[in-house]
Amino acid sequence: MKVIKFGGSSLASATQLKKVYKIVVDDPKRKFVVVSAPGKRFAEDVKVTDLLIDCGAKHLLGETATELEQAVLTRYASIADELGLGHEVMERIERDFKELISSDKTNPDRYMDRIKASGEDNNAKLIAAFFRSQGTEAHYVNPQDAGLFVTDEPGSAQVLPESYENLYRLQDRDGIVVFPGFFGYTKDGEISTFSRSGSDITGAIVANGVKAEVYENFTDVDAVYAVNPAIVHKPKEIIELTYREMRELSYAGFSVFHDEALVPAFQAGIPVQIKNTNRPELPGTRVIHRREATNGPVVGIASDGGFCSIYITKYLMNREIGFGRRVLEILEGAGLTYEHMPSGIDDLTIILRENQMDCHTEDTLLDCLKNELSSDEVVIEHKIALVMVVGEAMKHNVGITARAAKALSDAKINIEMINQGSSEVSIMFGVKEESEKKAVRALYNEFFN
Amino acid sequence: MKVIKFGGSSLASATQLKKVYKIVVDDPKRKFVVVSAPGKRFAEDVKVTDLLIDCGAKHLLGETATELEQAVLTRYASIADELGLGHEVMERIERDFKELISSDKTNPDRYMDRIKASGEDNNAKLIAAFFRSQGTEAHYVNPQDAGLFVTDEPGSAQVLPESYENLYRLQDRDGIVVFPGFFGYTKDGEISTFSRSGSDITGAIVANGVKAEVYENFTDVDAVYAVNPAIVHKPKEIIELTYREMRELSYAGFSVFHDEALVPAFQAGIPVQIKNTNRPELPGTRVIHRREATNGPVVGIASDGGFCSIYITKYLMNREIGFGRRVLEILEGAGLTYEHMPSGIDDLTIILRENQMDCHTEDTLLDCLKNELSSDEVVIEHKIALVMVVGEAMKHNVGITARAAKALSDAKINIEMINQGSSEVSIMFGVKEESEKKAVRALYNEFFN
Repeated sequence: MKVIKFGGSSLASATQLKKVYKIVVDDPKRKFVVVSAPGKRFAEDVKVTDLLIDCGAKHLLGETATELEQAVLTRYASIADELGLGHEVMERIERDFKELISSDKTNPDRYMDRIKASGEDNNAKLIAAFFRSQGTEAHYVNPQDAGLFVTDEPGSAQVLPESYENLYRLQDRDGIVVFPGFFGYTKDGEISTFSRSGSDITGAIVANGVKAEVYENFTDVDAVYAVNPAIVHKPKEIIELTYREMRELSYAGFSVFHDEALVPAFQAGIPVQIKNTNRPELPGTRVIHRREATNGPVVGIASDGGFCSIYITKYLMNREIGFGRRVLEILEGAGLTYEHMPSGIDDLTIILRENQMDCHTEDTLLDCLKNELSSDEVVIEHKIALVMVVGEAMKHNVGITARAAKALSDAKINIEMINQGSSEVSIMFGVKEESEKKAVRALYNEFFN
Repeated sequence: MKVIKFGGSSLASATQLKKVYKIVVDDPKRKFVVVSAPGKRFAEDVKVTDLLIDCGAKHLLGETATELEQAVLTRYASIADELGLGHEVMERIERDFKELISSDKTNPDRYMDRIKASGEDNNAKLIAAFFRSQGTEAHYVNPQDAGLFVTDEPGSAQVLPESYENLYRLQDRDGIVVFPGFFGYTKDGEISTFSRSGSDITGAIVANGVKAEVYENFTDVDAVYAVNPAIVHKPKEIIELTYREMRELSYAGFSVFHDEALVPAFQAGIPVQIKNTNRPELPGTRVIHRREATNGPVVGIASDGGFCSIYITKYLMNREIGFGRRVLEILEGAGLTYEHMPSGIDDLTIILRENQMDCHTEDTLLDCLKNELSSDEVVIEHKIALVMVVGEAMKHNVGITARAAKALSDAKINIEMINQGSSEVSIMFGVKEESEKKAVRALYNEFFN
């Protein structure tokens, strides 16, 4: 059995839904279909979820939102109309939506979560109806009925472990199961949504629950690319990569999807196949636990800006037991998380995301690090980018570091930091943000051209 | 004014003492002479300090040690005799030594410290007498009289801050001050010795106290070499290096002298000149705060074995606030100090000195790291060597890393770890111990040949 999940752009219009139907029925193993809300049909279009958020916000402010409500319903209606579905499904959607809009607003977070979740929920109803209209048995399944229980954290719900056993029973259902992504129910019967990429999370949870042989994730790109296409024109596609490689790439800004969304599938050892709804004949990218074949030691190059570094120096630091631990305690006390902490003999550097820092935090932090630790010098540097060269096969490959460092050197890029050796899967270079793109291009050329 | 310190091999025989005398009187600024105990005259010779340790140990065991005592006294007597010194000085040394041997043994550490310190103390008396015999006013000064006070930690005494003010008054003494290295006095009037390189420490303390313009450290090598001569034949000499470079090199096994011995001079901003007693006309090596001139970005290459690495991996580690801090707490709890802690996204590596670990500590540690932190995997790797490429000018020099990594790659050496970016003064490579020498040679060839 396969779990197949479609993203918003794959479900944005009747044309797209016809492709989706074809894909699903093309393989009888595709029994579990997890769906997003209708996404953008064209670049300037508005996603249904965004319409819903505006709509909910207005109602919470006590305003009317007739136009927004109409816009939401029109999206479903135009799809239903074009697909030639009967009135029944739209009547149900309209009735449910009106009821929802006027529901209890005493807890605004819960109200918003209900409104947001309706985007996926109504789409699942509509898609099930469409499949049936095509002569295929398909049923909308409500997450509460299926037993997808989550913590009571609106907007960042976590799945409860018992859900997997409940979902396992979905196998007994007749026909195709159409399941709305993005949300589950608390034990009190309240809707609670996942964080970003919420439909990806639902797909991974369902895949885990039903013990799927593969979790197919259909989106609007042909594959995961070896490098950001905004930086390198027409980059190579990755046929196969491991979870760890995926995660390292995601960390440094790869956004095909949010790696943590895969955790439930990862835990169950289920491979994830990323494919394009518009070109399902292409192989796409497969994310797996281990891989044998390799198309070179480096699988991809990623980068992300927005880091800063704090450099602390103190003579005889390495003789001072507990120095590193005290530095980390000061960071924790300031509510900051750090990314890396390379250390020398008399110095250490903390790399952290800049968006955690404001002037006040920065001043306080520098003051603590200087005075509480009696440091000789504390220097903060802003606008650092991390560039990652990722590939599981690198570990046993003498010379990858040399090639990478030389490529950067030839491009006249100064390396502020190297982090190699902890992760066996990546080498990380710290460079100034202004050199980020140049660095990525230099490394791509070295390893892929 | 200059403080000039001579090591044991510079003071091992009458021939050596004549060279020393010539060096001292050659520059009227050389007023403060700090001396070690007589060292080896030839490769198989025994240092006076080692004779004294054996001698003290035997007495503590209640045995006699007539031969050892005689050997000690003979060393001084043969020097005194050859230098044509009168009986007076040897009579004093013999009397003092006999008294010392039979002194109170209720505190064995203090007894040993007194015995050990006599090596330097008697040599200072002898050298002062020799200088006077040559017509130069010179006086032995006892550290207690000079106010060199230290903590009550036999074998690892620390200087007390008030000593510097006391020593400042040494300037008022007439003639040349001959000062024994290696020990000071507690406030209770007990002798307490410094750790290894104790005479270097005394020299640095005196230099700080008298505000010397330079601390000249005479030894038996022409200079600090750019690499260990046991690994590379006839390596380049370093004309000038900074304290920080010196310290980075010392850390990785450079043993010209123990960098921490320089701390008192470093704190007072006093340059250290390393010279060869046997070839004083050579420029030697100057250790300074900052340097302008540079003979290339890399000043030296050092290496040291005996490290191990502990690799910890846990999925989503970087989201876990306090993970690094808890790792360091576990290490502290086990009484272990770590050297470096490179971290990836889901993993971190701890580099520590292997000699801290026995099987029991290792098992306990691995167990704690695995279970208390719920890590996915904890792997320890032994026999790691760290190879350091050191030079202050590297920071602004694009391409040093590339050259270093390429040199290692060309020599088919796998880089287990790179640590660059915290220290602005060095790049550190972790390699297997079996590749250590090969790595050092490859890097030396790259940067110096």
